[in-house]
Amino acid sequence: MALIPAKPDGRPTVNIGMLGYGFMGKAHSNAFKTMPYIFWPDAARPRLKAIAGRTEDKVAEAATRYGFETYSTDWHDLLADPDIQVFDNVGPDPEHFGPTMAAIKAGKHVVCEKPLALSAQEATQLHHAAVEANVKHLTCFNYRFVPAVRLAYEMISNGELGEIYTSSFRYAQEWRTDPDATLPTPAGALSVIGCHAIDQARLLVGDIAAVSAVLSNPVSSADRGEPVDAVTSIAEFHGGATGTISATLIAPGRRNRLSWEINGSKGSICWDLENLNVLRVYRRGGTTSEGFAEVIVCEADHPLVGPWWPSGHVLGWEHSHINMLADFVRAVAEDSPLTRTAATFADGAKAALVADAITESAVKGVRTAVPELPGTSTGS
Amino acid sequence: MALIPAKPDGRPTVNIGMLGYGFMGKAHSNAFKTMPYIFWPDAARPRLKAIAGRTEDKVAEAATRYGFETYSTDWHDLLADPDIQVFDNVGPDPEHFGPTMAAIKAGKHVVCEKPLALSAQEATQLHHAAVEANVKHLTCFNYRFVPAVRLAYEMISNGELGEIYTSSFRYAQEWRTDPDATLPTPAGALSVIGCHAIDQARLLVGDIAAVSAVLSNPVSSADRGEPVDAVTSIAEFHGGATGTISATLIAPGRRNRLSWEINGSKGSICWDLENLNVLRVYRRGGTTSEGFAEVIVCEADHPLVGPWWPSGHVLGWEHSHINMLADFVRAVAEDSPLTRTAATFADGAKAALVADAITESAVKGVRTAVPELPGTSTGS
Amino acid sequence: MALIPAKPDGRPTVNIGMLGYGFMGKAHSNAFKTMPYIFWPDAARPRLKAIAGRTEDKVAEAATRYGFETYSTDWHDLLADPDIQVFDNVGPDPEHFGPTMAAIKAGKHVVCEKPLALSAQEATQLHHAAVEANVKHLTCFNYRFVPAVRLAYEMISNGELGEIYTSSFRYAQEWRTDPDATLPTPAGALSVIGCHAIDQARLLVGDIAAVSAVLSNPVSSADRGEPVDAVTSIAEFHGGATGTISATLIAPGRRNRLSWEINGSKGSICWDLENLNVLRVYRRGGTTSEGFAEVIVCEADHPLVGPWWPSGHVLGWEHSHINMLADFVRAVAEDSPLTRTAATFADGAKAALVADAITESAVKGVRTAVPELPGTSTGS
Amino acid sequence: MALIPAKPDGRPTVNIGMLGYGFMGKAHSNAFKTMPYIFWPDAARPRLKAIAGRTEDKVAEAATRYGFETYSTDWHDLLADPDIQVFDNVGPDPEHFGPTMAAIKAGKHVVCEKPLALSAQEATQLHHAAVEANVKHLTCFNYRFVPAVRLAYEMISNGELGEIYTSSFRYAQEWRTDPDATLPTPAGALSVIGCHAIDQARLLVGDIAAVSAVLSNPVSSADRGEPVDAVTSIAEFHGGATGTISATLIAPGRRNRLSWEINGSKGSICWDLENLNVLRVYRRGGTTSEGFAEVIVCEADHPLVGPWWPSGHVLGWEHSHINMLADFVRAVAEDSPLTRTAATFADGAKAALVADAITESAVKGVRTAVPELPGTSTGS
Repeated sequence: MALIPAKPDGRPTVNIGMLGYGFMGKAHSNAFKTMPYIFWPDAARPRLKAIAGRTEDKVAEAATRYGFETYSTDWHDLLADPDIQVFDNVGPDPEHFGPTMAAIKAGKHVVCEKPLALSAQEATQLHHAAVEANVKHLTCFNYRFVPAVRLAYEMISNGELGEIYTSSFRYAQEWRTDPDATLPTPAGALSVIGCHAIDQARLLVGDIAAVSAVLSNPVSSADRGEPVDAVTSIAEFHGGATGTISATLIAPGRRNRLSWEINGSKGSICWDLENLNVLRVYRRGGTTSEGFAEVIVCEADHPLVGPWWPSGHVLGWEHSHINMLADFVRAVAEDSPLTRTAATFADGAKAALVADAITESAVKGVRTAVPELPGTSTGS
Repeated sequence: MALIPAKPDGRPTVNIGMLGYGFMGKAHSNAFKTMPYIFWPDAARPRLKAIAGRTEDKVAEAATRYGFETYSTDWHDLLADPDIQVFDNVGPDPEHFGPTMAAIKAGKHVVCEKPLALSAQEATQLHHAAVEANVKHLTCFNYRFVPAVRLAYEMISNGELGEIYTSSFRYAQEWRTDPDATLPTPAGALSVIGCHAIDQARLLVGDIAAVSAVLSNPVSSADRGEPVDAVTSIAEFHGGATGTISATLIAPGRRNRLSWEINGSKGSICWDLENLNVLRVYRRGGTTSEGFAEVIVCEADHPLVGPWWPSGHVLGWEHSHINMLADFVRAVAEDSPLTRTAATFADGAKAALVADAITESAVKGVRTAVPELPGTSTGS
Repeated sequence: MALIPAKPDGRPTVNIGMLGYGFMGKAHSNAFKTMPYIFWPDAARPRLKAIAGRTEDKVAEAATRYGFETYSTDWHDLLADPDIQVFDNVGPDPEHFGPTMAAIKAGKHVVCEKPLALSAQEATQLHHAAVEANVKHLTCFNYRFVPAVRLAYEMISNGELGEIYTSSFRYAQEWRTDPDATLPTPAGALSVIGCHAIDQARLLVGDIAAVSAVLSNPVSSADRGEPVDAVTSIAEFHGGATGTISATLIAPGRRNRLSWEINGSKGSICWDLENLNVLRVYRRGGTTSEGFAEVIVCEADHPLVGPWWPSGHVLGWEHSHINMLADFVRAVAEDSPLTRTAATFADGAKAALVADAITESAVKGVRTAVPELPGTSTGS
Repeated sequence: MALIPAKPDGRPTVNIGMLGYGFMGKAHSNAFKTMPYIFWPDAARPRLKAIAGRTEDKVAEAATRYGFETYSTDWHDLLADPDIQVFDNVGPDPEHFGPTMAAIKAGKHVVCEKPLALSAQEATQLHHAAVEANVKHLTCFNYRFVPAVRLAYEMISNGELGEIYTSSFRYAQEWRTDPDATLPTPAGALSVIGCHAIDQARLLVGDIAAVSAVLSNPVSSADRGEPVDAVTSIAEFHGGATGTISATLIAPGRRNRLSWEINGSKGSICWDLENLNVLRVYRRGGTTSEGFAEVIVCEADHPLVGPWWPSGHVLGWEHSHINMLADFVRAVAEDSPLTRTAATFADGAKAALVADAITESAVKGVRTAVPELPGTSTGS
């Protein structure tokens, strides 16, 4: 017997056009390239049709590096190509609104990195446009797809924590402690990382009714219009729970620590991104010999883990992106809904509404209501 | 050679009169009885002269149990006894103001459990009365005397963390998750445990200029005037730092967790009461191979540890009271100042001013300035 | 109403004579002085009758400091006093055998610090003498009286871990890493701290059938007869379990870390002395969303905790001694057995038999059987 | 401007033939597919030429799934193809020796999963054959390529821990606690996971001179020749250090916990696979306010991290394989040595020599010397 040519992978393809080639371009490309053999045999196959970016030599290099078939320095070319089904916007924040809106108008399914837009107004427009155009839409709140976060969501949904009482959400990094670090653009801690904390709060505790907030700029200069270094807020949720939502770029030693604690009538849970496989769980039982259990969320029957490795072979940061984008590619291929924990543009817009309310509250020094997303009701 | 009678302990005595015999009476009695042989040979010896309490059989039993020479059901008897130098008020919260004020007027040195009074107004009166009467005064914010907390204070004072940027302080317990638990009196989470969180914030980060706050009552009924289950606030410190200060009685699994994190320009520190011997320290250095160090603050040269046991023989909760009261007894005996980290009535009053501002902010929904303690300036 | 003289404490007394006044003398004195008001109202009261030690000014000072009624430079005086019921030997290791044997012969109840003697032979003699004299006898393996250790014992006894399979016990300190540190006497790591690791293994897993061991002396000089810095051994238990038992004085960063992990058919538990209130517990359940729970063993219904403070007010190192000696005083007063987890001289002798077998195994390079304690059978 | 076809990736290719398609086949395939765009632009590109396995439909499916160009049910076909440069053996353990030996004889560079062979004798033969044939050879001790492990290696090599004194290495899993679990083949805990613990010990502390060991079978039946459930051993290293090396398949709650602690004259380090990004580091400094630092080994300048994600975006289990195989592919492409921490067949053979000595020691009950690998000297 001799070597036999492999049979072609007959699964349907979903054709991707990507705008941007930086850190997130790498993470998304890795996701598209990895999902076909991990989510086997059910998933569709992403086909990396084209990548666009401003600087020709860099976008050309990215195309070769990641295996895109073509490239362009003009993202309009992605929209003009009728083969491209998905427009994946991993460009800089100020480029989220325009190209994504154009892609929707061109009938593309749209993926957009966070924050969805620079303002709640723009984010809301994107949401409405996507709904109206009847395209799939995903805001890349990738931490929703960390298995431990998903397990937390399932526990809360199943009532395992009972009524949620109190909570705290915080995203802490340290790099802006160095005053020579490049300024985060355009809106500082709230936009760069705070939106993830807001989104985790919304995912796990629910929609937010009002916020009270303070901004601080000990390193950057607010007078020169430099973005905020840290934001601290109190959230009052529609469901009655309260919580803190904070983001700081000036916490020495916190490399990349998104963390939260949630307390309900039946138990409490904690998680942090620096040890992302572990969910700490306290279930109120009948005895005093109980405590927070370190659950390593890495078993075959855990959500989002099954397709990966055997028990205890832990996952890393990038897997949140792979899990997230695999769900999107599946939804496009099957023309079916995203999984219910995926963040749509509605979620991107709602996070922006919270962010804007936080800024307003901080400026005015008053508790500030978070407006509902027009066209939706709170419970949704 | 035969057994030789021991020489008498010739150290001066400080005569104690105590009001109350509950949990805190036990903790303080233990402190007074332990300090003479631990803080040897320098300290004075407390002499347990008299204990007062409402219920005769109980106060009589407490006298025998703890070795008080006499007892009474009327605390005025303590003030009438000219031998008694220190009036130690460990009675119920509503009994803090009246008896303590009377003790000051009687010229006694005064120790009072937290909260110093039921309102900032009363606490301020106590402060002014004590200063005017020129008596020693101590508010029992005992966690200032946990060695790890004291080390944190020293580090911050020495500039080891640089400028303080952000912080979070939280005191979490769980018992009120049970709706059948006895209601905390009179003011709920803020008064029962929140004042400790406020005091730690003031000790470590400094005086607070303004607060924004939310109260919540998912278990208790605010309509029936029941005390708050949880309070969440944002503090803006005079020094420019920001932080959260929270207290909750409804956090399942949190047995007794006062905890904080402080981030400065040169490093970060964390601590929690459930593992009270450990200070977690991050110092920004020149390399990336650094992280939060678990410092077991239990070496002979650590503050407040030396008189105790050899390296690594860890201390417990009660040692904070012993360390605190030993300092007070020393100050009385020597007629010298308390150690600079002891909480005086000024600190008790300042904590009450913050607490009142938190409540006001929560009710009004606006950022609320914390008034200065009359007769003092902020920097002090 | 005026101050009323306190009623006398009518509980029976147990009269103590102590040999030694160092670190352990302080710990035991603290225990005797604290137990009467903590273990109220049931316990007897220790009465500190006399203390003996070699150096007159020091023993005189200790008598005054700790409140002993008398002192002597000759421990025989303690035995000659018919009032003294308990001889508590906290003297240097070489003084454990002679005075304790004499005390037994004088009909005293005997407490002896670990190691019980310098050899298994002497320890066995003490055991037999005490049994024959029908006096109470206690080897001070105080860590048996840490609440978390006691809870572990109860869990194993109740079958909550099922059949014990594997285990590891280690006592690590660091001070001998400094080659200028005073040499531990007389037998090094095994005797100074290793006996505690052996005893925890025996308490929790059971009697040991055979050991295989290696000694190491990277800092000290074996050639000059200096004691061993570290010992590593494998234990095979009569019940079928295996485990490691190690002790090292040369582990930088390990201030005082006695630690163990035990794995059974139904679960696993871990503990360490540097965070002594916490027992980490894994119970095999029906789901994968389980993990090691950090149980803070500090609730009123936990063993050895009830008499102390409310939930979560954590205990320290010294409480193990207080709990242990309170049990002994109670047994003497009531002429009843020690609690079943107290270490008698039989346990002290059995630990010595294991220690001797470890040394023999290391020297010979062969698996070495641990002899049974003459006059007992293994199961006891 | 229109979409421009991407330029081809002009890097040299390294042609891979793989035997096996199970768990490890998936991990290696993922590695080969990921490395070209992560290790950009320097690395060669693996080309997945052919995959072989016994069951035709499964190997055919694997070929399509992972993108191998061809497949076969006969691994000899891989050797017969002159284009194939690398033979990657991820087949079952009993298939390690024969096909790998044949591949060497066919002049292929060889990668072999652990354990390298079923006996030290066979492993040694493979080593000698590979050296003689002058092919590149890699034993897949992938944990050497976890960034935290590599950092540990660098620290020890640089003398940051000083002289190594004591250590413990343990690999614990739990699945065999279930007596219905499939038996591990062929040699149980020692072969399935123990070899990783041995290899980490050798990598970090050095070659092993002698072992003392015990095997245990509480679940499996040794009488029926079933493989061991747990093995415990003491290692004496040539450099003078001692340590324990353990492996257990019956530790409930330990999902996949390879862990170690190493103590040297200047400091200590700890690591475990369940939280693999963290190295715990204690450096002896001049003060007592030090402790074990949790270093998140995930910064751009950490070894093996740079090509991945920004600071603190943590890696998972699979990255150890990608890092390892990328180094091998580079070495083949450049005809240069493997990185000095890669495990060659010499390391595979040395681990097998230790494993065999452990078994012999356990059977005989005596300390057993570990033979040197013929043709090498210990220091190498």
